[in-house]
Amino acid sequence: MTSMNHQVRLAARPSGLPERSDWELTEEPIPTPGPGELVTAISHVSLDPAMRGWMNAGASYIEPVEIGDVMRAATVGRVLTSEHSGFGPGDHVYGTFGVQEYALSDGKGVMKIDPSLAPPPTYLGTLGLSGLTAYFGLLEVGKLKEGDTVVVSGAAGAVGSVAGQIAKIKGARVVGVAGGETKCRWLTDELGFDAAIDYKAQDVRRALREAAPAGVDLYFDNVGGEILDAVLTRLARGARIVICGAVSQYNATDGVRGPDNYLSLLVARASMTGMVIFDYAPRFAEAARELGAWLTDGRLVSREDIVEGGVEAFPEALLKLFAGENIGKLVLHVGSD
Amino acid sequence: MTSMNHQVRLAARPSGLPERSDWELTEEPIPTPGPGELVTAISHVSLDPAMRGWMNAGASYIEPVEIGDVMRAATVGRVLTSEHSGFGPGDHVYGTFGVQEYALSDGKGVMKIDPSLAPPPTYLGTLGLSGLTAYFGLLEVGKLKEGDTVVVSGAAGAVGSVAGQIAKIKGARVVGVAGGETKCRWLTDELGFDAAIDYKAQDVRRALREAAPAGVDLYFDNVGGEILDAVLTRLARGARIVICGAVSQYNATDGVRGPDNYLSLLVARASMTGMVIFDYAPRFAEAARELGAWLTDGRLVSREDIVEGGVEAFPEALLKLFAGENIGKLVLHVGSD
Repeated sequence: MTSMNHQVRLAARPSGLPERSDWELTEEPIPTPGPGELVTAISHVSLDPAMRGWMNAGASYIEPVEIGDVMRAATVGRVLTSEHSGFGPGDHVYGTFGVQEYALSDGKGVMKIDPSLAPPPTYLGTLGLSGLTAYFGLLEVGKLKEGDTVVVSGAAGAVGSVAGQIAKIKGARVVGVAGGETKCRWLTDELGFDAAIDYKAQDVRRALREAAPAGVDLYFDNVGGEILDAVLTRLARGARIVICGAVSQYNATDGVRGPDNYLSLLVARASMTGMVIFDYAPRFAEAARELGAWLTDGRLVSREDIVEGGVEAFPEALLKLFAGENIGKLVLHVGSD
Repeated sequence: MTSMNHQVRLAARPSGLPERSDWELTEEPIPTPGPGELVTAISHVSLDPAMRGWMNAGASYIEPVEIGDVMRAATVGRVLTSEHSGFGPGDHVYGTFGVQEYALSDGKGVMKIDPSLAPPPTYLGTLGLSGLTAYFGLLEVGKLKEGDTVVVSGAAGAVGSVAGQIAKIKGARVVGVAGGETKCRWLTDELGFDAAIDYKAQDVRRALREAAPAGVDLYFDNVGGEILDAVLTRLARGARIVICGAVSQYNATDGVRGPDNYLSLLVARASMTGMVIFDYAPRFAEAARELGAWLTDGRLVSREDIVEGGVEAFPEALLKLFAGENIGKLVLHVGSD
């Protein structure tokens, strides 16, 4: 254990892809908890496309990270020292502790996790906000019905891979859109997707005609851009599009590109609905129990793509998301756990 | 009465705004009804932005008009001769008889109208598909609630002017977006809109900040384009956008422009839903009764913008819709009624 807490702070608001100079590495003494507080030694940091939005000025669905602040991030770790009645040293916990090695907390929003059910990084992915986003996006916002033809973009990512598997569990036909043969093979061979479309090698619109001949009933969109436009041309009557994210657009320097084919919503009597996972917080525990049960009985496969190198590796690791280099949940390993 | 039936047929599929050369004027003898048929002398032809879509090749929510066919149009008129047991000479009727002076029909889709309740052209607008579109779009698709802040674009048009008035009747705060001072004054002074924004003279986004300070709960969109993008920046949490049409985009020669601000749907947890009025056909009679009652008691003002000149004037009259020259329902007067 080092005697210092290494941190990654936002140094500048990026234009386009975040650069190394947009971050500042700082170190501080490891904090000491006061009454009612605890200090956690972080083991893994969640890397999420949404982080790019938090780096921009201006209110969105959540306040931006301020210049000079430790970068916001979901994390897991173990309690190092505690003056909080609810937590003791050694407890495995989840919290939004940020990109750093140690975090002081009053316990609000901190949850104990059970490493005997799943490894701690899984609580950042399939059993964390990624899995919950897939769950509520598909079942609540998307109103998934048995027999639906479901298309998921970013299908090999943390949210998409879970969304597709939940759709399969619920009796849908599932088509994943992902970049590259390796990802596509993973979707069909390991996760049981009915079909996968490699958007880097295939014409998505044409491939959808084959993979979803009767049209798309539910589209779970993580990427926006050209793939959203392609799916819009293949909607079944009454289709639902869930706007979960738009990773293809987050680093656009000339503004987000909207879906030019949006009038297909009219022809198909379809809807496009945005979601923010925090709205479902009161039901997180219930959903996590169901996700955990599927994980335990093997119906749900969880994969974490763990990057080594500690907090210093954060700036480069984050870019993997936008280059589409990760399969499953991208996580940064921090500390020695 | 002339002895011939003058008609307007589609001669070519236009690129951009329809030109005179895209139409062919033809004449035929006035038809004679066979058993079970009737012939109607058309008095008024409905002019609708949707007509532009029907001129394009390829299936949409309705089959295209084929080259050489009489242009599809909703019409009203009086039965001239009848061998149909349900209709007699002199009956006032509504039917999709097309842009011509006389039409032969087997009676399917033909409805009697009551000229003592409202003048026949009103059955093409407020008591016809325009009013029904406003009614179902607002109440069913848009799920209007009392107290909502509603924005209507194309607000001085046939659909928009009725949509805004229904929203007022149902207890909403209503902001209309229209082009020009005359239209805006009509909305606020005659129709009781709470505010009107002149998109030709005002910055719509800024004007919405004043007119809808708490955000937009329901947006009834007839125009698409920049106004849709502006409203997207002002959505209240849980807002509903009804995509009824996109008149600003129908004549685009470089493709439809999608709403670049669509990720506001995510931030606002909002939805955008397309509609096609024919889906509500089983409930047309019920809705028309309610619209008729509002018209009779003066709560709903109907305005028709009647163009003279007969079927020959159709090509130029249609362009008025895309130039935004009409106030209320644009109707072409045909024949002598």
